[in-house]
Formats: sequence, C-alpha cells, structure tokens
Amino acid sequence: MGPGPSDVAPSVLHAMARPLVGHLDPAFVNMMEEIKAMLRTVFQTQNDLTFPISGTGSAGMEFCCVNLIEPGDEVIIGVNGVFGTRMCEVAERCGAKVTRVEAPWGQIIEPAAVAAALRQVPQPKLVAIVHAETSTGALTPVEEISRLAHAAGALFVLDTVTSLAGCPVKIDEWQVDAVYSGTQKCLGAPPGLSPVSFSPTALAVAQNRKRKVQSWYLDVNLLSSYWGQERVYHHTAPITMNYGLHEALRLVLLEGLPARWQRHEQNHLALKAGLAELGLAIVSQAGHQLWQLNAVGVPAGVDELAVRKQLLADYNIEIGAGLGPLKGKIWRIGLMGHTARRENVDQVIAALRMILKK
Amino acid sequence: MGPGPSDVAPSVLHAMARPLVGHLDPAFVNMMEEIKAMLRTVFQTQNDLTFPISGTGSAGMEFCCVNLIEPGDEVIIGVNGVFGTRMCEVAERCGAKVTRVEAPWGQIIEPAAVAAALRQVPQPKLVAIVHAETSTGALTPVEEISRLAHAAGALFVLDTVTSLAGCPVKIDEWQVDAVYSGTQKCLGAPPGLSPVSFSPTALAVAQNRKRKVQSWYLDVNLLSSYWGQERVYHHTAPITMNYGLHEALRLVLLEGLPARWQRHEQNHLALKAGLAELGLAIVSQAGHQLWQLNAVGVPAGVDELAVRKQLLADYNIEIGAGLGPLKGKIWRIGLMGHTARRENVDQVIAALRMILKK
Repeated sequence: MGPGPSDVAPSVLHAMARPLVGHLDPAFVNMMEEIKAMLRTVFQTQNDLTFPISGTGSAGMEFCCVNLIEPGDEVIIGVNGVFGTRMCEVAERCGAKVTRVEAPWGQIIEPAAVAAALRQVPQPKLVAIVHAETSTGALTPVEEISRLAHAAGALFVLDTVTSLAGCPVKIDEWQVDAVYSGTQKCLGAPPGLSPVSFSPTALAVAQNRKRKVQSWYLDVNLLSSYWGQERVYHHTAPITMNYGLHEALRLVLLEGLPARWQRHEQNHLALKAGLAELGLAIVSQAGHQLWQLNAVGVPAGVDELAVRKQLLADYNIEIGAGLGPLKGKIWRIGLMGHTARRENVDQVIAALRMILKK
Repeated sequence: MGPGPSDVAPSVLHAMARPLVGHLDPAFVNMMEEIKAMLRTVFQTQNDLTFPISGTGSAGMEFCCVNLIEPGDEVIIGVNGVFGTRMCEVAERCGAKVTRVEAPWGQIIEPAAVAAALRQVPQPKLVAIVHAETSTGALTPVEEISRLAHAAGALFVLDTVTSLAGCPVKIDEWQVDAVYSGTQKCLGAPPGLSPVSFSPTALAVAQNRKRKVQSWYLDVNLLSSYWGQERVYHHTAPITMNYGLHEALRLVLLEGLPARWQRHEQNHLALKAGLAELGLAIVSQAGHQLWQLNAVGVPAGVDELAVRKQLLADYNIEIGAGLGPLKGKIWRIGLMGHTARRENVDQVIAALRMILKK
C-alpha cells in the first residue's frame, strides 16, 4: 500500500511465469499488437504510436523529452512535487531552457500560472505537467492547461504514471500530444515498462528534428519500426514483462474503465472516513485529492518512521514516506490497481488504530 | 535456439511469479546486495559498482557511453558486426568522434588494427570492442587490445552481452574499465536487465565530468546512490526482473563457472559434429567461433527463411536469421544458458536432417 509498485493480481503473476519466446516470434508479434490496441483503449486515444517503452516510468519521461526537445528549445513545466522537478532535470539534460511553473507541494498547478508563464516565453516548444503527483497526492486538472498550451503553439505533454487506469485519463479528448505512464501503479503489472503515446503532431516533430535523438535506446524513429509493421529489430523486448502487461490490460478492460475508476474512488472515500475516525486527514488540496495515493498528515508527536516500520514488521503492510519538503510530515497510502480493495482499507485502518492506540 | 532470449530454467520462471514488494523494502534491499555480490563473481571482478541497469543490453551499452563520453571525445570502436556498428551510433549521439576499426563480419578484431588506429588518434578517451558478436558468432580475444588501450591512456570498454556466463569473462584480470551484459543470453534470465560494472577509474571519469550525463535515467552518479548504501530513490526498480536475475545467478554459481563454460563448449562441439554429418559448417573465423552462438552457412539452393519457418511451425524450434551482409547467408543457432543442453542439440540436428532431407 505504498506509492507503487502496487500488488499484482494472481493471473498477472502467473503470466510472468510463462516460458520465453523470441521477440520476433509470430506469437509475440500478435501479443504486441494486442498490447498496443488495449493501451489505446486505456489511454482513450486513436494514436497509432502507442506502445510500452522497455524501461520504467522515468524512462517514459525521458522518452518524451529526448524525442521532442532539441538544444535551445523553450519548455514550460509545472512543478508541484518530485516528478515535475524531475522532468525539469531531464529536459535540461536535453538542452532545453526550462521555465518552471511552481506550486506548493500538495497543491495543483493553476491554469492562470501557466498562462502567465506563456506570456513570458516567446516560442514554447512544449508545456508539460504531471497529472497525478505521486509525491503529494494532488490531481491537476488537464483540459484548460492543454488549451492554453495549444493556443500558444506548444505541444502538450502529460505524466500519467499514477493516474492511468485509476481515474479518468482521456488523451484524445484532452488533446494531449505526448503521454507516458508506468505499469506498476493502477495498471496492476510489475514495474519495468512505460506505456507511451504520441499524437501524429508529436510524432512529426520527432521525425523532422534537426539533430538526431540523443538517446539511441529511446529514439522513437527506431522504436516505431519495431513496434510498427516493419518489425525491424531494435532491442530485445522484455518478453516476460510484456506477458504481465498483456494480462494486466486484459483485467483492466474486463473490469471496464468506469467501474475501475469508481472502485478507486470508493476505496479512497472509505480510507478517508476511516482515517477521520482516527483523527487523521488527507493534507493535499481539497477537491483535488487523488483516489489512488493518499497523503496523510502525520500527527504532532508521532514518529512517522517508527509507525511505518511497525506496519511493515507486524502487519505486513508497506506505506510510503513523504519526500522533499513533505519528508516526515506525511504518510503516503497507495490504493492502486489490485491493491485498491476494501479489505486493504480495513486492514490499514485497523493496524493504524492499534499502533496509534486510538 | 535463436540468438536470445534463451530458454529459462523452471525455477527462474517460478521466481518471476512471486508477489511484489517495494523497491525500498528491506527484503528487496537484501536481494539487491546478493545480486551485486553474485554479479561480481560472475564478472570475476572486485568492482564495487556492479549492478543491473533497468533496461535491456542496449541500455547497458548506452549506459557506458553516456557516462564515459563527453562531446568532442575521441573514441575507437571495433566494428565486425551489428553490435559494434550500434556502439558507434550510440557513441556519436553522445558527441564522440568515432574511429572505426573494421573487420569483415565473422572475423575477429585484430590487435594490430587497434594499434594502427591508436597511432592515428592523439588522445583517445576509450577503446571499445564487442567480446562475442551475436550477429556473426566470432569471439574476439580481449587481453592484447586491453593492453594497447591502456598503454595509450584510454579506458577499455567491453560488450559481454552474449559471452557472460557462457565462456570465460575475466573483468579484473583483463583490466576492463567498463562492461555491460544482458540477462537473456547465457545468464539464463528473461530479457529486461543489463548487468554492468565500472572500475574505480571509470567511475572517477563519470564523477568528474565537465557536463552532466545527458541521460537522467542512466546517470551512474544517481544510480550508484540507489544501488549503493545511501538507497536514495531514483526510479522504481523492476522488482520481478530482479527476482528472475537473482535466481538465474544462483543457478550459475551452483553449477560453477568452469562447469558452465565446459557445458557450453561441449554442446557447441556436439552441434558442430552433427552439422558436419549434414554437410553444414560454421562459417565464422576458425579458432574464434563462439560456443553459445553458431553461425551456420546456408547451403546453395536452400531457402533459408522456409527452413526457419518449418523449424518453428513443425518442430517448435526457433533459430535466428543472418543480419546485414550475412542476411540470407547464415542461420544463427543459439546454445545459451538453459538452452545449451544435449537434447536440444540432438533435436535441432534431427529436425534439420528431416527438413533438408539429408
């Protein structure tokens, strides 16, 4: 019940134990096509270029930056937690001039602040925000910021590592040009792959670069030949990880996205009610609190590390610590994917009640 | 029986199905330490910085290049197949001026050719070669080239993707400064991780760079804080892949490296004898043929693709095609890790006998 990796359904674990086949085997190529199709449904996009990068969510972030940014490009990035901070670092290593739109950790990025930054930056190449900040539990609304970015002629890039399959994510409706996610949160597969999707506009930007992409491993122009119809060998795909993602996506679609979102919401509400009985509260911005990651304020006088250690040692429950300015101030309780179940909510509340002697 | 991924032992598949724990869980941290220690034994190195990158072998290649190369650096790379060619591409994307030491595909890189290149290049930052060229089946001897590189003041970088755990690899004895490998060949785990090791000299080069490493995901200065004693969160490690690697390494050490090398050699010799009975021969350079990857000449008048398709469809055996200048001219028969067994040799020979009507 930490910030991910989340628990994985038994059938996903079972899929991971299947024997290997080759990365150009017809059976695996069929599976690749099914993964792409299922990812399009989950991302709610028609983008042809939709597939999993052979790395974790941070590799997906780097994939978006290295393919879309050239040295000297102006980019605007929302920073309200660890992952917006990280995106600035990644973009700078691609040679970008980064303008940060900052908000206090736990708060959302306000469209007005993005609009103000856009007035300062003459020709922004892209605007990027983190949809669900795993480090703070805040969910930033997307549509207005996307509209502002496009009105300024910029691409719009979205981090959905923690949001995808846990709350509404609508890539085409929201006009997102480039998006990345991770398998180990609400998708319910082990960590190791990063689903990504590029709009035709974003792909054209990558195809018409002046300089080669600085990463060979993450070059979309090469990857799209392997994941497209040409099947040109690029790298040896992580076969087993794709087995796991395939089964996890099957479970997501079997449940249905609206039902899955509702399950995440209901368990969040149950957790919130249980926490309230213990005198605990979620501290991220009211009205914008994530269902899948709950930032719980540590009461004054409580040793937050000791509580986490006892939860793990005596109750077999992992929860996360605060990071950066929130270190020591919050616990992060994840209710993601297969972990988002009422029995888990009840167990963590019962355990906290015992430990805190409420 | 292709060029990898190889088959995986049942206990490795079983390990992949274990439930997830967090990437900072004490049990996982213990496992990380065991993986590092076992990798040091397999690489035959005392290098402290020895751990698996969260990507495939090509990510390991990029890891070595992005950390060691700065724009304008002179590098010398041996090119006798796909992977030397790839390394030039990766190094150029890091801003290197690349001098290629070329040899015909199927032949080794000769020390004299490296020496000649070193006379042309004033201050080489590094010399890199591919130990076992998976695309051609040639095994280039390492020691003399390493000596030449160091005599010129250069770092020595070695690709052991296909060699590690299938034939002798001696990182410290050979004075290799930076090495990468893959899990899906002779180590006998699924693809998805790239074991790497840096000597203290290589690490110092990465630590004292003028510019930041262009890849955040592969920055050794950040990764060494997670895989070192500080345990600073960097990315979410692919937990399940590490379970698989841990079990695969346990099996390697249980068998013992000399016994494992001998098993690979014996199965190669048995395959070679069986091929000879069919009038088939291994075409890579005599005296330098890989045990784990056999480049078999396609006889005149035989449709190489049809044979591979029939092997897969009727006999459930995958073998690989030739690449580049060897396309249509060779089959690549892998005998790597758990696949390197006498029953597999006998089956592929029997199947080829039927298909070729010998």
